Amino acid sequence: MSSLYQHGTLAMLMGKQMQGTASVAELLAHGDTGIGTFEGLDGEGIILDGKVYQALSNGQVVQVTDQDVLLPFVSVHFHEPTEVLPFSEVDFGTLSSKLEKFQLDNIFAAIKFHGKFSHVHTRVVAKQTIPFPSLLDVSKNQPEFHRDDVAGTLVGYYAPEIFNGPTAAGWHVHFLSDDKKFAGHVLDFSATEVDGTLQLFDDFIQHLPIDNAEFRDMSLDLDGLSSGIKASEGRKA
Amino acid sequence: MSSLYQHGTLAMLMGKQMQGTASVAELLAHGDTGIGTFEGLDGEGIILDGKVYQALSNGQVVQVTDQDVLLPFVSVHFHEPTEVLPFSEVDFGTLSSKLEKFQLDNIFAAIKFHGKFSHVHTRVVAKQTIPFPSLLDVSKNQPEFHRDDVAGTLVGYYAPEIFNGPTAAGWHVHFLSDDKKFAGHVLDFSATEVDGTLQLFDDFIQHLPIDNAEFRDMSLDLDGLSSGIKASEGRKA
Repeated sequence: MSSLYQHGTLAMLMGKQMQGTASVAELLAHGDTGIGTFEGLDGEGIILDGKVYQALSNGQVVQVTDQDVLLPFVSVHFHEPTEVLPFSEVDFGTLSSKLEKFQLDNIFAAIKFHGKFSHVHTRVVAKQTIPFPSLLDVSKNQPEFHRDDVAGTLVGYYAPEIFNGPTAAGWHVHFLSDDKKFAGHVLDFSATEVDGTLQLFDDFIQHLPIDNAEFRDMSLDLDGLSSGIKASEGRKA
Repeated sequence: MSSLYQHGTLAMLMGKQMQGTASVAELLAHGDTGIGTFEGLDGEGIILDGKVYQALSNGQVVQVTDQDVLLPFVSVHFHEPTEVLPFSEVDFGTLSSKLEKFQLDNIFAAIKFHGKFSHVHTRVVAKQTIPFPSLLDVSKNQPEFHRDDVAGTLVGYYAPEIFNGPTAAGWHVHFLSDDKKFAGHVLDFSATEVDGTLQLFDDFIQHLPIDNAEFRDMSLDLDGLSSGIKASEGRKA
């Protein structure tokens, strides 16, 4: 039995709360693998083997070694997989059906696999300044990237529909190439030579920055929240 | 900093998952204070000072000493309050406004207070048999009770709106009289001589029964979920 730890919520990003509220040191205390974003929505984060990488909106990727760098939203877990992926080829459109026997619908799970990607389509959110906009507004004008024939690792989570708001329901996955030069939030992909695992969680630990005054003051447009999250996080496939 | 631990979700009860999946022993490992319900929706649970009480739909209250009794849905925490309630009189209609300075909107909190209740209005769900119905159907025909001039303890939680589904957003509180003869899920109350506390949580730990086959198979009517929860849990005030 294992735990998925999440600092912040996706709803907070929709509610313009992009101030960093958890440090790299804090997130690494709760996992060695995961995904997130940085203060001011400064790119996409991917955590692999305890190392934190940041995909920037100019297309570059940097490794984050400063333990004090802050994040508003991040999900991490310790990589202790329970299942081996039962396929060698997959794309975003077939991922769920190829995992049907694991009955993910109502639970939290992590996926992590290495593969040869014939195509990866990513977005990388761009750094915002105060006063922060909503994630939905940011995502309407986001840098997107395409890369063909690239080897790399895809990592991320499946979350049940009822947790859309706290997090993104369905799949939310990021990519990092082996050469550490291409990364981002995955909108679409197609991969062969897939070698990876699935990890099922019985605990979802939602951590909230209760000492942050802006977060405590936040008012959310709940009517548009669910559809807004799907619009801002959704894959294009 | 402290944690609120929840086994199961309110959505599961809406999805007819009333089989018990956590034992009294398991819940007491995660808290000494809380609220819940029992296998088959057999009454309302209230946990105080590490003791578990069960309000039955015939109006009786029993103490549950068998550590193997099962629950499908329960929320618990260790009572380590952070704030003293700043009022001596309160009713359900004024509770939120009297706590406004604590800015509970976006966070999880526990409330626990003793008082003299001029009136308490409760419901106690009745035990269901397989095949289980939805909580919404059960709540449409639920035993309700009224008691005037009763001393007792109110305990329960505030949850942010975005967690409606995993749990009940807003206030979800249960009552137990000092003489342990009157208890239930609170629909309305009015109290004086209030003496109690508030506890703010930074972690909400959502535990799911991932080894339970019926839960894994569950399909939810998501369209009606949010309104259904409010209809089935909502206070009458």
